[in-house]
Amino acid sequence: MLTLASDFGSPYPAAMKGAILSRTDAQLVDVTHDLPRQDVRAAAFWLREVFPTFPPAVHLAVVDPGVGTDRAVLALKAGDHVLVGPDNGLLLPAARRLSDDISAYHVAFDEPASTTFHGRDVFAPLAAEIHERGAEILAADDRFTHTHEYETVTFPEPDSLDGAVRGDVLVVDGFGNAITNVPGTVLDGHVGTEVIVNGESVPARRTYAAVEHGQRLVTVGSHDNVELAVNRGRGEDGFGVGPGDRVVLELS
Amino acid sequence: MLTLASDFGSPYPAAMKGAILSRTDAQLVDVTHDLPRQDVRAAAFWLREVFPTFPPAVHLAVVDPGVGTDRAVLALKAGDHVLVGPDNGLLLPAARRLSDDISAYHVAFDEPASTTFHGRDVFAPLAAEIHERGAEILAADDRFTHTHEYETVTFPEPDSLDGAVRGDVLVVDGFGNAITNVPGTVLDGHVGTEVIVNGESVPARRTYAAVEHGQRLVTVGSHDNVELAVNRGRGEDGFGVGPGDRVVLELS
Amino acid sequence: MLTLASDFGSPYPAAMKGAILSRTDAQLVDVTHDLPRQDVRAAAFWLREVFPTFPPAVHLAVVDPGVGTDRAVLALKAGDHVLVGPDNGLLLPAARRLSDDISAYHVAFDEPASTTFHGRDVFAPLAAEIHERGAEILAADDRFTHTHEYETVTFPEPDSLDGAVRGDVLVVDGFGNAITNVPGTVLDGHVGTEVIVNGESVPARRTYAAVEHGQRLVTVGSHDNVELAVNRGRGEDGFGVGPGDRVVLELS
Repeated sequence: MLTLASDFGSPYPAAMKGAILSRTDAQLVDVTHDLPRQDVRAAAFWLREVFPTFPPAVHLAVVDPGVGTDRAVLALKAGDHVLVGPDNGLLLPAARRLSDDISAYHVAFDEPASTTFHGRDVFAPLAAEIHERGAEILAADDRFTHTHEYETVTFPEPDSLDGAVRGDVLVVDGFGNAITNVPGTVLDGHVGTEVIVNGESVPARRTYAAVEHGQRLVTVGSHDNVELAVNRGRGEDGFGVGPGDRVVLELS
Repeated sequence: MLTLASDFGSPYPAAMKGAILSRTDAQLVDVTHDLPRQDVRAAAFWLREVFPTFPPAVHLAVVDPGVGTDRAVLALKAGDHVLVGPDNGLLLPAARRLSDDISAYHVAFDEPASTTFHGRDVFAPLAAEIHERGAEILAADDRFTHTHEYETVTFPEPDSLDGAVRGDVLVVDGFGNAITNVPGTVLDGHVGTEVIVNGESVPARRTYAAVEHGQRLVTVGSHDNVELAVNRGRGEDGFGVGPGDRVVLELS
Repeated sequence: MLTLASDFGSPYPAAMKGAILSRTDAQLVDVTHDLPRQDVRAAAFWLREVFPTFPPAVHLAVVDPGVGTDRAVLALKAGDHVLVGPDNGLLLPAARRLSDDISAYHVAFDEPASTTFHGRDVFAPLAAEIHERGAEILAADDRFTHTHEYETVTFPEPDSLDGAVRGDVLVVDGFGNAITNVPGTVLDGHVGTEVIVNGESVPARRTYAAVEHGQRLVTVGSHDNVELAVNRGRGEDGFGVGPGDRVVLELS
């Protein structure tokens, strides 16, 4: 199985599919091609959330604002998964979530056909080859150089002070839910009550539909973090927050 | 074959795919993940139009504003198809279009990992299991309770009065065509003439291109209903109508 | 392998998939369903860029503003590929890029279920049948009429005058890059210098990231043409150009 993820929208992902299917008859699974465009951090968040649902696979992921520069090409063995993409931090949060056992390789590649589309010319052929020949080639073929030097992406940690938790909005999802870095466990014992979010009282609830249409709530999302939401509306608008914004929760 | 449909956009559908592929090697087919967001009625219309083109399959469909509440989980056997999703009416119009022979089951489930993403934690594993073990488990396994009590969605019926037909816009498609509940047969004998739509004279034509670019027309869409359209433009704008709006056709 | 491309967005592509999978168990590959809507020329450009990455396949492509009129149905044998779609020029640039050996056939079809959705009712069943029975049926079955009369799409050619190259923007991609018809080779020897684009000095660079965030550049895109871009921004905005606009490059 070979999964594909990118920020390419349409129609560039098809060129990656063609390049792969010209080399292997792998089962292709589209993860998404609408990762936040050119936003390596937000894209890394989503890959971290999604990849662990998959069985062992080769995961090709490309969000690559540095395409054509000297940024390296990375192949990561994470347990029984292999992740392939640019060495810009994109793959690391997902790899760490998949396994504690990570081996990283820089990959030498021939001068590709283009300097602007390594997805088609470098990453897709590489993922196809790893799928075809197995993860063993990472250790066996001298194009692959084992390394401990690679880019990473980290997410800010929330902090606590005097009963308040200060965190950040990491991403906003397609429904408008503002997903924070605050672990859902801080709401333990507070669900069903009101909590203070950025100075205003908001109900903490288990489900979106526990409040009226258009009403705000805080809940614990599927990523186990605190999420600012509006039932059948957009939390980002209801709370006036976006990625990177500060969120202060006061729990009485 | 296991089809997937949702209003999730990106990237949540991938978590459903991963959850399924971890449990079965079913052939996955994306129906769409851009169903009208949180709009159960419009989504139900589209599933009704699309599912009958498929061979027998397990169809997973999730538009689920009541996720995490006490709304039930529904599995419907409709002829040789099985439909899986929330018990909120979403599946019924499609099931009835697929077969007159429908059996409905409520499905017990363990407390899932999340209260906000049953697509990943409840529906995808359930669809995978039904695909893997066959529709027979619906009658055989005691987690499935045969029922005649489930939510449904109905579409309004048009009515006729003095040579006028009064109907409603059900949905607007991606091209901007306003699809009504008026059966296309009311235009029999009128195609090629002018009809009165909401008080204004409009050509009735077999094809969009039968009028000039930017001109309005009424036609019979692929769903066999009357559709308000603009050739190479957007019917919803040309006619100033949207879902739920009244449409009166006067045929001379 | 059977690939699908259209301008249908959501959810109409699913009806084509269902119609195909009811007739053949072909491996389906979504190319894209977000081709520029009703824009045959731009869509033809993208198919030409993408199809050559694929191994031999049946390619179903539908951008069809003339649906239901007397426009013909076309099947093109291009080397080991078969392309199926409306005879409106959409398929020709891709076919010519795939092979010098093209045979074209007009296809007779029964009155379809709809006059507005030949994707579902004509093209998908036809592609499925060709996939199932092989390209041999094009020459063997009398529904297929060999022809040299079919619509085509051509792209304007740039011209040169006094060291200036005058071309046109062909399409703008999802990243906002304005892709011209000027061959990338005109930048040979100029990469790393400044060139004059529509009267203003702009750096010519190999990669987007060779200029600062938000800065303009000209580069050679993955299609081997000159592209007007903004690093981590939108070239169409930075240069104030869109499809069809004139681009004059002066190289010193």
